[in-house]
Amino acid sequence: MPAAIKVVRDVLSANDEIATQNQQMLAEHDVLTINIMASPGAGKTSVIMETIRLLQSRLRSGVIEGDVASSVDAERVATLSVPVIQINTGGGCHLDARQIQAALSNLPLDTIDLLMIENVGNLICPTAFLLGESLRVTIASVPEGDDKPLKYPDIFHQADAIVLNKMDLMPYIRFDLAAFYERVRGLNPDVKIFPVSCTTGQGLQAWVDWLASSHASLVSKG
Amino acid sequence: MPAAIKVVRDVLSANDEIATQNQQMLAEHDVLTINIMASPGAGKTSVIMETIRLLQSRLRSGVIEGDVASSVDAERVATLSVPVIQINTGGGCHLDARQIQAALSNLPLDTIDLLMIENVGNLICPTAFLLGESLRVTIASVPEGDDKPLKYPDIFHQADAIVLNKMDLMPYIRFDLAAFYERVRGLNPDVKIFPVSCTTGQGLQAWVDWLASSHASLVSKG
Repeated sequence: MPAAIKVVRDVLSANDEIATQNQQMLAEHDVLTINIMASPGAGKTSVIMETIRLLQSRLRSGVIEGDVASSVDAERVATLSVPVIQINTGGGCHLDARQIQAALSNLPLDTIDLLMIENVGNLICPTAFLLGESLRVTIASVPEGDDKPLKYPDIFHQADAIVLNKMDLMPYIRFDLAAFYERVRGLNPDVKIFPVSCTTGQGLQAWVDWLASSHASLVSKG
Repeated sequence: MPAAIKVVRDVLSANDEIATQNQQMLAEHDVLTINIMASPGAGKTSVIMETIRLLQSRLRSGVIEGDVASSVDAERVATLSVPVIQINTGGGCHLDARQIQAALSNLPLDTIDLLMIENVGNLICPTAFLLGESLRVTIASVPEGDDKPLKYPDIFHQADAIVLNKMDLMPYIRFDLAAFYERVRGLNPDVKIFPVSCTTGQGLQAWVDWLASSHASLVSKG
């Protein structure tokens, strides 16, 4: 095996080991953890904020924000008075399990039911790194176009749910919804798909109901 | 120095050496080469196609398409009857100079004035890999939001020009144009910024005029 490939495999296997530890710790605290992956600007932070608002009478949320630079997303989320940690990767193109492990030690896990991890905006690199999540969620958005599943198949293939955001822009953009669904189903036949708009509120209730029932399943198993 | 860092530096320095060879070969053929970087769905292929159409009486175009998977972009470009090569990275998150070197040997460089290289949709990883380009162009788009320069500073810092695409969607989206300009100028005071729409045609003439004059400068220097 060439040395370069060995290095990458070692990094991934060390990452997966820590991810498993994170997952155990989160399960012990009955925390449903979702790893949210998307392009830059797909609306990850907006979806997180609407989710916190809609679930606040049912689930207590916490957030980990991952960005190459800046803390603007964490500042936005903090206005909702939930625990939030910002991770700056300083050029790194994805979050990894060790960064999440450090963040978890700074979060009040006993008072969190739903932990949303906003990964770095990138449809490629985050797919290889488990963080300790219960569920993987890919957010796509209407302005990105209906061909994204063809070009970035891994992130659609491995998702437990896909949120299609910015549905309010459908009248102004050529986006073939049937083709998008067909391309996603071709990669991942049973994935949940939630078309939503954080501007109009469309579709968000179905999305948060799914999260609440996923949390209930986790607790009943635990 | 830790071994892992050494490996990355070696990879980058080998890449830069091939990039320099590519650049020399392209200069010998008077080809203006632009490395186009953007998020998935920012409209890279649409900008390339409008550029080919608007310049067709002045410059002969060629295109290299980089994607993780699929050849949908190359198929779209090929409808304009220009030479096009599709590179599939098979999971790779950016193009590199060796891939471009292989593509160049399959392109009729004597009949190309403007070579547009569409990098993989990613605001982070492509920034570290020179390809042999004359100019680096970042395409941002209105639906991605005005905060992208804060979160992905490198790609805005190193650009020779920034195209802000999908200006036709401004009425439907909260996007602070003044804040976007200010954030870009904070990273890159002298960069050219071209607000455009491939749907309405707004702003595209200024963009292609800049390319034509950049080509003229390259030829007069050569």
